[in-house]
Amino acid sequence: MELSEELEKKRAVINKELESLLDVGENATLKKAMSHYPSAGGKRLRPVLTMLLGDAVSGEGKRTIPFGCALELIHNFTLVHDDIMDEDEFRRGIKSVHTVFDVPTAIIAGDALFSLAFEVLSATETEDSKLRKLLEDTAVTVRVIAEGQQMDMEFESRDDVSEDEYLTMIGKKTASLFSLATKGGALIGGGTEEQVEEASKYGRFLGMGFQIRDDILGIKGDEKVIGKPVGSDIRNGKRTIIAVKAFEDLKGDERKRFLEIFGNESAGEEEIKDAQAILDRAGAIKYAQKCADEYAAKAHKALEIFEESKEKEILKALVDFVILREK
Amino acid sequence: MELSEELEKKRAVINKELESLLDVGENATLKKAMSHYPSAGGKRLRPVLTMLLGDAVSGEGKRTIPFGCALELIHNFTLVHDDIMDEDEFRRGIKSVHTVFDVPTAIIAGDALFSLAFEVLSATETEDSKLRKLLEDTAVTVRVIAEGQQMDMEFESRDDVSEDEYLTMIGKKTASLFSLATKGGALIGGGTEEQVEEASKYGRFLGMGFQIRDDILGIKGDEKVIGKPVGSDIRNGKRTIIAVKAFEDLKGDERKRFLEIFGNESAGEEEIKDAQAILDRAGAIKYAQKCADEYAAKAHKALEIFEESKEKEILKALVDFVILREK
Repeated sequence: MELSEELEKKRAVINKELESLLDVGENATLKKAMSHYPSAGGKRLRPVLTMLLGDAVSGEGKRTIPFGCALELIHNFTLVHDDIMDEDEFRRGIKSVHTVFDVPTAIIAGDALFSLAFEVLSATETEDSKLRKLLEDTAVTVRVIAEGQQMDMEFESRDDVSEDEYLTMIGKKTASLFSLATKGGALIGGGTEEQVEEASKYGRFLGMGFQIRDDILGIKGDEKVIGKPVGSDIRNGKRTIIAVKAFEDLKGDERKRFLEIFGNESAGEEEIKDAQAILDRAGAIKYAQKCADEYAAKAHKALEIFEESKEKEILKALVDFVILREK
Repeated sequence: MELSEELEKKRAVINKELESLLDVGENATLKKAMSHYPSAGGKRLRPVLTMLLGDAVSGEGKRTIPFGCALELIHNFTLVHDDIMDEDEFRRGIKSVHTVFDVPTAIIAGDALFSLAFEVLSATETEDSKLRKLLEDTAVTVRVIAEGQQMDMEFESRDDVSEDEYLTMIGKKTASLFSLATKGGALIGGGTEEQVEEASKYGRFLGMGFQIRDDILGIKGDEKVIGKPVGSDIRNGKRTIIAVKAFEDLKGDERKRFLEIFGNESAGEEEIKDAQAILDRAGAIKYAQKCADEYAAKAHKALEIFEESKEKEILKALVDFVILREK
């Protein structure tokens, strides 16, 4: 089994569905703004996960596509609004929505993607009683994501963010949606209560590992590969697990130098390189990867309940892909 | 029957429910930002309408309260985001959310109110199959509201907005949510298909009349009563039905003078008074009130299908209240 081929096949189905879903409404500008990120690609991890779990429990992965697409729309809505808040100019190698259009249009486009997600959710092919549960879970998740984003922003003005707080924040902001994707896939697919529970855990752990890997790439990734400026997390003083660890461990001159650069919006390339080297020497990047690896191990464990299948193999391979990816 | 007393009774029930619903989540700032508008009062027209329709069809108005509150949360979410886009500093006599907090927090607070609305919706006491329909209708309505807001913003840079375009815009931005409130109330209350249809129309016509009256108050209302600066619609060059009519009818010096003031953000009080007087002389305000009256007549007609009841009397009185209100 070649992971990338399998993912590509699922992605093609999802992309077709998304394109058709986004052909909606009567305002040309709003339509363009809504499609700006979805049409620029993306890994489609959330709907891919939903399909895989549906298949893993019953081979009914296809039925989960609308739900998975709803989550992808929610993911894209949060990106549009987050980029406004973080004043990020680039995303997926293209200009951000509020940069191409303007802030008001980006706010509306995010809201419209959000509502479209619930519209798509209402068409999920599942018992009405399950739909009620999915609606509740989805709505709670979006509110929890909002809380995570709020925490993330509040962290920016604090030097004493603890690792626990950081983990709570990414649990809300990132892992919650992954968890909903895998849980929903197992539920719509007709999994047992225990399977749904373990699917939810799998998604949560995968999401934690995913976000920590994302933070690592934000510090030392290849700008051309990840599609956004690499220094921006350092310039923005973003409290990632790496920064949290550095704040805990750095002493003396290294600490002083790091504090000069971290959160300094006008830091030049040399300074960014300096900060990267300091984080490396302090072992903060290695520590972060170790955390990601631990979540990966937990994700693998959550898969034990599922019978052997091709999909289970893909779900396993996906864990390793996510925590070792370069983009 | 004293309308204001009846409304006050319903409002008290709704306010209690809203207060309890908004006591949610783990982030103190986000909670405060979410409650900022709901706790500052408001007419609660949408949930009041939902209850009245539920009562009108079956006396089951109480069951519609969660749905009505969900719509009130959606209404408040759109206010939070609209105020960011329109850069409005005041609302309901208090500072707007993004002014008290900041733009990022206001964006998140709006998103969180939006998701909370769907969370509340999921708890609606109704058959699961009806919930699916309500979910679809609600999600579509929010997307349509977003389209209306986008149209409204696009109008600001155009001098040739037609009355039809204006009516389409307010149909999307305002009347759609009123229509959903009344339709949902009749549906949850167990009304017949025809009753649900007429309830939906009643809400739509009432909403159209409401918005036109709102536009009139924005031009000539009492600042202290409506809780926001009266000149702002003129300074912002807002394309209300009054402005659309003025653009069609004004000629010569009056037109020249009006164009000097309209959309001029630094227009002083004297200039605002001039613009008001020009609109009055042109008959634009009178024309707008005539339109509102016509919608009121249609709303009354939509009520014919319902049996005589106290609630029907209140629904009638509400029409006249809405299109003649001073705030």
